[in-house]
Amino acid sequence: MAQKPSIPKGTRDFGQIEMARRNYIFNTIKSVFSLYGFQQIETPAMENLSTLMGKYGEEGDKLLFLIQNSGEKAALAPEKGLRYDLTVPFARYVVQHREEISFPFKRFQIQPVWRADRPQKGRYREFYQCDVDVIGSDSLIGELELIQIVEEVYRRLGIRVCLHINNRKILAGIAEVIGAPDKIVDITVAIDKLDKIGVEAVNEELKERGLSYEAVAALQPLLNLSGTSAEKLEALKDILANSEIGLKGVAEMEEVFDLIEATGVKLNIELDLCLARGLNYYTGAIFEVKALDAQIGSITGGGRYDNLTGIFGLPGVSGVGISFGADRIYDVLTELDLFPKELLSATQALFATFGNEELYYALRWAKELRAQNIAVEVYPEPTKMKKQMGYADAKQIPFVAIVGGDEMAQNKVMLKNMTTGEQKLVELEELIQSINR
Amino acid sequence: MAQKPSIPKGTRDFGQIEMARRNYIFNTIKSVFSLYGFQQIETPAMENLSTLMGKYGEEGDKLLFLIQNSGEKAALAPEKGLRYDLTVPFARYVVQHREEISFPFKRFQIQPVWRADRPQKGRYREFYQCDVDVIGSDSLIGELELIQIVEEVYRRLGIRVCLHINNRKILAGIAEVIGAPDKIVDITVAIDKLDKIGVEAVNEELKERGLSYEAVAALQPLLNLSGTSAEKLEALKDILANSEIGLKGVAEMEEVFDLIEATGVKLNIELDLCLARGLNYYTGAIFEVKALDAQIGSITGGGRYDNLTGIFGLPGVSGVGISFGADRIYDVLTELDLFPKELLSATQALFATFGNEELYYALRWAKELRAQNIAVEVYPEPTKMKKQMGYADAKQIPFVAIVGGDEMAQNKVMLKNMTTGEQKLVELEELIQSINR
Repeated sequence: MAQKPSIPKGTRDFGQIEMARRNYIFNTIKSVFSLYGFQQIETPAMENLSTLMGKYGEEGDKLLFLIQNSGEKAALAPEKGLRYDLTVPFARYVVQHREEISFPFKRFQIQPVWRADRPQKGRYREFYQCDVDVIGSDSLIGELELIQIVEEVYRRLGIRVCLHINNRKILAGIAEVIGAPDKIVDITVAIDKLDKIGVEAVNEELKERGLSYEAVAALQPLLNLSGTSAEKLEALKDILANSEIGLKGVAEMEEVFDLIEATGVKLNIELDLCLARGLNYYTGAIFEVKALDAQIGSITGGGRYDNLTGIFGLPGVSGVGISFGADRIYDVLTELDLFPKELLSATQALFATFGNEELYYALRWAKELRAQNIAVEVYPEPTKMKKQMGYADAKQIPFVAIVGGDEMAQNKVMLKNMTTGEQKLVELEELIQSINR
Repeated sequence: MAQKPSIPKGTRDFGQIEMARRNYIFNTIKSVFSLYGFQQIETPAMENLSTLMGKYGEEGDKLLFLIQNSGEKAALAPEKGLRYDLTVPFARYVVQHREEISFPFKRFQIQPVWRADRPQKGRYREFYQCDVDVIGSDSLIGELELIQIVEEVYRRLGIRVCLHINNRKILAGIAEVIGAPDKIVDITVAIDKLDKIGVEAVNEELKERGLSYEAVAALQPLLNLSGTSAEKLEALKDILANSEIGLKGVAEMEEVFDLIEATGVKLNIELDLCLARGLNYYTGAIFEVKALDAQIGSITGGGRYDNLTGIFGLPGVSGVGISFGADRIYDVLTELDLFPKELLSATQALFATFGNEELYYALRWAKELRAQNIAVEVYPEPTKMKKQMGYADAKQIPFVAIVGGDEMAQNKVMLKNMTTGEQKLVELEELIQSINR
């Protein structure tokens, strides 16, 4: 026997159960997106390298998968690559199709992306992203709707979450006020440890990270911020009094919190000044969502950007978007045992038969059930009953309808409930009722 | 302004309308697959080249897209490629996961494939395939169920079709009987022209294609076959009397037609001895489906194979499958204007507002509607009414709920029906009823 075949490292096959679960996540998310008028688009797996290169930094460029036609001379440099995310293809799409699009453009996109990362636990070379954006409007209703979407998606999935929110303009204001505009990442990383290590240690770390004595001193009011998000924003107005951009950020956050209150959002939302997010195209609100009952990091994140399409020659278009992390959501639902049980049993009943005539009989019954939109299977051979039952077990089919000569003579089937083991002789109508119950 | 960005030739972006229509096709097909107990799997876009190479003939190998990590030395030969179809990855999947699979294994798979073909009208370098197979049983109930699925899918889509069916064993029998085992393709191609060019010309062509005088003479009874499929099969029993494999093929077809009759299949089905299908792994029944009201070639095709997994070291596993051609189905539905109209209007109502207070009011109403599972949008700025209306028009939103001071004062909105132009002042309950009607 030949060597067992395999797939490239960092890639995955999804079997039926995984697919049913993944579809449950995607369908839940899609139906919420639709409630808000977001519509799906798809872009090609491969993009021109001129579209991809230079958009993800030097490190990102190295993680691109390049594509070559096998018919082409190997000497030719590749001109195409697999998409690395859905954001750059989206920006390319908006610019390329700007004449056909009616703005504000509300789109979502659920497709795989590819990165030549070193595979490790929870990190794959092929994985799905699930992005939702509204572009072509700077209205903060965009932020509100994404927050409402987060609330509704996780309500439907049954995952308790906290949404952390911050604003890049506030971070820029802080850096401006303390005179350390290039240190904003160092500042957020250090402040993030406040709860764990305390003020003294944070200040020590800030100095180690190159902040001046004055800068650290200027930061102290920030470290002492407490209370509700509204109280923190109030205090920030004093701290950022001399920063125009900082005050703009505070005003934006106040408006977002006003909108949240006015529309009765129940989601757990926390103004988190330590939230920075790495991507440098964010210019306003930034979000991250964490599951409260699982230790897994951010399961959704995103933010406002003012110039995403500028890289393709269309400047000044503001948008806001978030991305749901399907793999992590899958892991949370698994860990908390939140997947609906019925996902596994797509087929409602299996017909098991003792002979060829019974098989034909079963096929006619199956047709009637399918006409009622009930998913059923007929075991394709009248083989050993044990084998047919084993098939039903393996596929977690809840009912088996057994057909022998006696059943046929009475125009019935012997219905076995695979959960309770109960058996009863039923007519077609009773069979339909038993399954639908 | 920079040059407008573009995508690689032979690839496509799918906008919201195209996606709504494509999803309609895929969802229709998926729901029918599910009625028969077929479950979805997915495999990675990239496979090891050892999995792909040599499976599609020399020509096919040249059409593979090869993948390289950009970080790797260019001198390294690529080890991965994009999948060329879903059949080889499925065979690889079955062999790799055979311990976990309960046979007969009923799976479907809807994913893109990539081929470095010369792009032309209707031929793309990236396109979706939609395959359904049952593997691990040689029962002809597999054939029956695929025929039932074809019937139900096209009934739901509203496309009138004819299913052409043949059997590779019958073709092998014919070649055996006339002593020209290597000429079966030439024979079917020539016979296929019978209606158009007549018997004389067909015989001429057969000789030109290298058939001996005796072989052409032996073929004559075949050219004169007429009547129903049952009558043709009866006649074939005489013609193929000396071919064991040929008679086996006839017996298989008779059983398939028995099953079709016993289960009341209404589909237009024709035994078509000219149907050959190019792929050499077929060993039994072969199918092709043609739309009756559109000139577009085959929109679904497939057949029985007895050794697909043999290439990966697991011989003797029989299966049968078909593939739905999504792009062609899309074209037929477009040509015949069969897409449901409501696909285009996912959003049921747009709230248009005259001011900021109205905007907050609209957001609260929108929340109520969404809680009733009604998809609505709020235009994110209280800008010119013309612009807000234009947005509703462009997205084909059927209702606009206009909110001004008067409406707010009465706790109502002015509901405009965008089809009829009618306007009326309504309360929340009436709004919900109007939209649901």
